[in-house]
Amino acid sequence: MIEISGQHLINGHWTNNGHDQFSSVNPATDSDNPYQFFEATADDANQAVATASRAFKQVRRLSAIQRADFLEAIATEIESLGEQLVNVAMSETALPQARIEGERGRTCNQLRMFATQLRYPTQAVRIDMADSDRLPLPKSDSRLSNIPLGPVVVFGASNFPLAFSTAGGDTASALAAGCPVIVKGHPAHPATTELVSHAINNAIIATGVPAGIFSMVQAKLPAVAQQLVQADDVKAVAFTGSQKIGDILNSLAQSRPTPIPFFGELGSTNPQFILPQLFAQQAQTLANNQVASMLMGHGQFCTSPGVVIVPNSAGLDQFIATLGEAISIASTGTMLTRAIAQAYQEKLAQWLSHDKLSLIAVGNKGQGSTQTPAAMFRVNAVDYLAAPSLHEELFGPCALVVICESHDQMLMLAQESPGQLTASIHGTDAEIIQSIDLIDDIAQHVGRLIFNQMPTGVEVCHSMQHGGPYPASTAPQTTSVGTMAVNRFTRPICWQNMPHGILPSELKDSSDALKFVV
Amino acid sequence: MIEISGQHLINGHWTNNGHDQFSSVNPATDSDNPYQFFEATADDANQAVATASRAFKQVRRLSAIQRADFLEAIATEIESLGEQLVNVAMSETALPQARIEGERGRTCNQLRMFATQLRYPTQAVRIDMADSDRLPLPKSDSRLSNIPLGPVVVFGASNFPLAFSTAGGDTASALAAGCPVIVKGHPAHPATTELVSHAINNAIIATGVPAGIFSMVQAKLPAVAQQLVQADDVKAVAFTGSQKIGDILNSLAQSRPTPIPFFGELGSTNPQFILPQLFAQQAQTLANNQVASMLMGHGQFCTSPGVVIVPNSAGLDQFIATLGEAISIASTGTMLTRAIAQAYQEKLAQWLSHDKLSLIAVGNKGQGSTQTPAAMFRVNAVDYLAAPSLHEELFGPCALVVICESHDQMLMLAQESPGQLTASIHGTDAEIIQSIDLIDDIAQHVGRLIFNQMPTGVEVCHSMQHGGPYPASTAPQTTSVGTMAVNRFTRPICWQNMPHGILPSELKDSSDALKFVV
Repeated sequence: MIEISGQHLINGHWTNNGHDQFSSVNPATDSDNPYQFFEATADDANQAVATASRAFKQVRRLSAIQRADFLEAIATEIESLGEQLVNVAMSETALPQARIEGERGRTCNQLRMFATQLRYPTQAVRIDMADSDRLPLPKSDSRLSNIPLGPVVVFGASNFPLAFSTAGGDTASALAAGCPVIVKGHPAHPATTELVSHAINNAIIATGVPAGIFSMVQAKLPAVAQQLVQADDVKAVAFTGSQKIGDILNSLAQSRPTPIPFFGELGSTNPQFILPQLFAQQAQTLANNQVASMLMGHGQFCTSPGVVIVPNSAGLDQFIATLGEAISIASTGTMLTRAIAQAYQEKLAQWLSHDKLSLIAVGNKGQGSTQTPAAMFRVNAVDYLAAPSLHEELFGPCALVVICESHDQMLMLAQESPGQLTASIHGTDAEIIQSIDLIDDIAQHVGRLIFNQMPTGVEVCHSMQHGGPYPASTAPQTTSVGTMAVNRFTRPICWQNMPHGILPSELKDSSDALKFVV
Repeated sequence: MIEISGQHLINGHWTNNGHDQFSSVNPATDSDNPYQFFEATADDANQAVATASRAFKQVRRLSAIQRADFLEAIATEIESLGEQLVNVAMSETALPQARIEGERGRTCNQLRMFATQLRYPTQAVRIDMADSDRLPLPKSDSRLSNIPLGPVVVFGASNFPLAFSTAGGDTASALAAGCPVIVKGHPAHPATTELVSHAINNAIIATGVPAGIFSMVQAKLPAVAQQLVQADDVKAVAFTGSQKIGDILNSLAQSRPTPIPFFGELGSTNPQFILPQLFAQQAQTLANNQVASMLMGHGQFCTSPGVVIVPNSAGLDQFIATLGEAISIASTGTMLTRAIAQAYQEKLAQWLSHDKLSLIAVGNKGQGSTQTPAAMFRVNAVDYLAAPSLHEELFGPCALVVICESHDQMLMLAQESPGQLTASIHGTDAEIIQSIDLIDDIAQHVGRLIFNQMPTGVEVCHSMQHGGPYPASTAPQTTSVGTMAVNRFTRPICWQNMPHGILPSELKDSSDALKFVV
């Protein structure tokens, strides 16, 4: 059992300079956990950055194999935390045991996937061979590889205490890229953060990589977050969270003397487009699938389906009735934090009194300030299009059914959609094939377009694109899930006429790395 | 012969709404050319954007082959402009005939290279096959391809009237990506812009692509530039020019309600690091190569070597003496515009009176306000490091020799360098192999690292990286030259469980496109 110290991990040492503390809260009981955490000071944050910057000189010279070994060691060490990690994460998130265990599996698989990617890259380096006889000018040998950007700040995400936090996808891909990482732990699950940081520190010791490759600071107030994004030696930021906070931090990143990439995943309503034939045939199944998907993680998945676009045609009554039944018997759920629960309750109250929305059903209310009911509303397409605030994500177990009078209206909803991580189209094969116009319009607004499946459940694979036009992502040309996620933290460099013996190993003629040679 | 109308090209029509006009200026004679150009109005710019946005629906459905045909037709049409294009470009830039002809060749080769890239892609699409038996959950079929971003605004660059302007690398790569392009012509060469726009319009007609795929507006004042960057329907911007203007436009692009990528190439001093052994052996050759490279385009190449870092050791006296001789006999040259000439003269005057700089030599002064002399200064490393303003690009035929007392001082110069498009290391094989620390430090600051060659002359190839940390580029993870340039204008999209018959053609099982399949 690891004793929770409430400290920061900087350069292999558990430390704190300040005296202010904040609590770990159990949302299930709406009471404090028995852990206190030191609020990082400006000095703590400075030290974390300075350490990462110094370490970068060694870290960038680690071989791909050394980085792979380190990532695999982190996975092993996380697994070694055993029940303690599961229990602590449950006590800080109110997520059920199976979910935490599943998320731990995903987190470790993800670390191992990036390790495999380092051992067997799937993207080719590029080599243009010299041609001294070329006219009018000889051609130089030139070879393109990727180098790491430098220290990366990763913000833990409230809704994935493992898979998008301390050793989550952002950290794993930045480490795979060869970047030192400074994690700013999410204040909703600081003990979970500390445990995972222990695992990473053990992996550092086990594999002999520089201690400065990973630091972690805990903070509840915004000062440290802002300081980290603005620190000269920080070269990129990864963030998953609200549009409001993401916009503020991105703006700081872009207004630095030297702007840096800000990879922010900010919000998505993941609209579900249902076509008439399938609607008429399977209204009940579609409604049940919608509710099941929306209730995963009590509506707190980034891919939660928050908007359902349906035709005003056969199936509608049954669809609405089924939604209503499913929602009204849905058990109450606990939100991840008091603040998230409060924001949800306020938005729900607005929707309940909104003159264009009709309530389909609201679920059980539960007890305490962190328990919230699921809910479902309906609105007609004209009113929805006229109210941009309805297009914003409502983070939690609530969705809006938008009813269209025509295919053209559905097209217009697709065209007017904000950027989304995902959208789904549900239809019979025949009607999908006839809906190329709709598919094309939706595609302009999403990172992932899904057919006849719900958006929750993001496959961690080579072809995954977890991103999408703003505000789904601040960097729609990149993904935060899957093997391509590592590209966020590298940049290409061209080595021209470099002596062969000192070329990066993957660019040498003798290397068996994946190469595109001209 | 095409008659220059001074109008804008919008949706296949030559048009103008405004009455204000500006002149085309011949920098060689410092007098007006016989052409007047209409300053685009807000309405002209709006129409260009609206046209591009409407056309995007068709343009994004063009096949790769149709786009390739179009790009090749543009190359053919540019060649058909014959001597008129060469003469007009010379009259607007004062660049010599051989340079304009060479640049035309590069421009057409570049268009054809992107066409070839469309016919025979070098980057694989990614396919994860379904696995319905997988436990605990079945795996969906998921396939990743790239889709175009939408209308792109391209700013013509003063120093490459063909290769980085109307049908230059930015336009060619955006069209290759499937994006409509709105060119904002550079006011230094509006007649050249008009002629090339005619060529593009002819290619549109010849290949039957939508007229809105390309528009061009002329403007000398900043209003239209700002309007285009802020227009809702514009989805990306490509810009090559000064850091001052680039920063302003980038800031507008990032502060839009929906931020968009801004691909700006802003400034680089392209430092040359010379190591002691080679310096002792070849001081004279190194000095002559430096001057020859610096005088290309009269110092107005983005890769012009503006800083030369040398040891205070054997060879220095001869190096300085040779530089001095070469500069003092260098013929005067004409700058691209009056404004560039004036900025150069002002900076030169500052350097001449700078208390830490010593003049090595200044070349012939020439006549008129657009003629400027070449010049070379020296400074010691300590004074250089203490004066950040000396690290900024001085656009024109001037360079600074920075003299180091030690290898550590050279390392410090590498570590303190702003972002650069390129740097070169000149040394014997033996000393280069011993300089891994220096190479590693320089690599952190450049997009292209060159050994024993000068930086001028950018190969248009698969492994080229023309970019680099800010301020060399506002998007260091992308390149503006070479086949990878097209990636700036696409984003990945994941198609999950999509009916096979309507998959993008390159993702179909039967396609012979380059695929990575798992």
